[in-house]
Amino acid sequence: MEIKRSDSQPTSEGPGDRFTGRVRIELLFEPTLPGRAQGQRVTFEPGARNHWHTHPAGQALIVTAGEGLVQTWGGPVERVHPGDVVYIAPKERHWHGATPDSSMTHIAIQEKIDGQVVHWVEGVDEAQHRSRTKRARQDAPP
Amino acid sequence: MEIKRSDSQPTSEGPGDRFTGRVRIELLFEPTLPGRAQGQRVTFEPGARNHWHTHPAGQALIVTAGEGLVQTWGGPVERVHPGDVVYIAPKERHWHGATPDSSMTHIAIQEKIDGQVVHWVEGVDEAQHRSRTKRARQDAPP
Repeated sequence: MEIKRSDSQPTSEGPGDRFTGRVRIELLFEPTLPGRAQGQRVTFEPGARNHWHTHPAGQALIVTAGEGLVQTWGGPVERVHPGDVVYIAPKERHWHGATPDSSMTHIAIQEKIDGQVVHWVEGVDEAQHRSRTKRARQDAPP
Repeated sequence: MEIKRSDSQPTSEGPGDRFTGRVRIELLFEPTLPGRAQGQRVTFEPGARNHWHTHPAGQALIVTAGEGLVQTWGGPVERVHPGDVVYIAPKERHWHGATPDSSMTHIAIQEKIDGQVVHWVEGVDEAQHRSRTKRARQDAPP
């Protein structure tokens, strides 16, 4: 058994070739074989998000703070809030991040298959992000 | 993609042959193959805990509220608090729950292998729980 005490772990910055804006990543747990699941706490500053990507075994996101956005390829941008849980299926192309005006923190859980936990596709550009956010706002209930 | 909105899910009661005291379980996500990881939010009322058990692929516990206890077979009782992350190795015998005086909520993540996510061993009896808690208190820093 290993216990990582609250706020005792270093965080790393989300690399610019996979994220847009400032993103802090804290590794929460790594698997021991035959386990495959790993967990991170990820904080996206306002406007920050990751690039389009897929996970070979899917991903669960548990939102813990702020307001965020998530979108799958061809689908609407969805707004998420603390307590919401997003499940993304294996190989489903998606991105997630903060809104332009609020940071967002989530716990992310995904599994390593054949040494790979994620496949990166392409970035979500500024115009896409803003126009999608605007649509999400218009679609959102008052 | 599926989004479960905060507090929109029903909870179930932890069954008496696997838990002592009142325990509420909320399923957060279930895997889609080849994914194996599942997640629950579990709230133990004061004095509640689960029986000794193991997980074939290990388990991660992310404490989100209250004060709890966790112990592996032969090890000391450890106190845990919000933000603490406990990683239990595959097949490591352990139990977790609330302290006698405080509830505890954690997110639990474990993986299904050959259809099995947990193997239950035996209960943690009242005297064990209280004496362990007392020792944990004595061992704890002021």
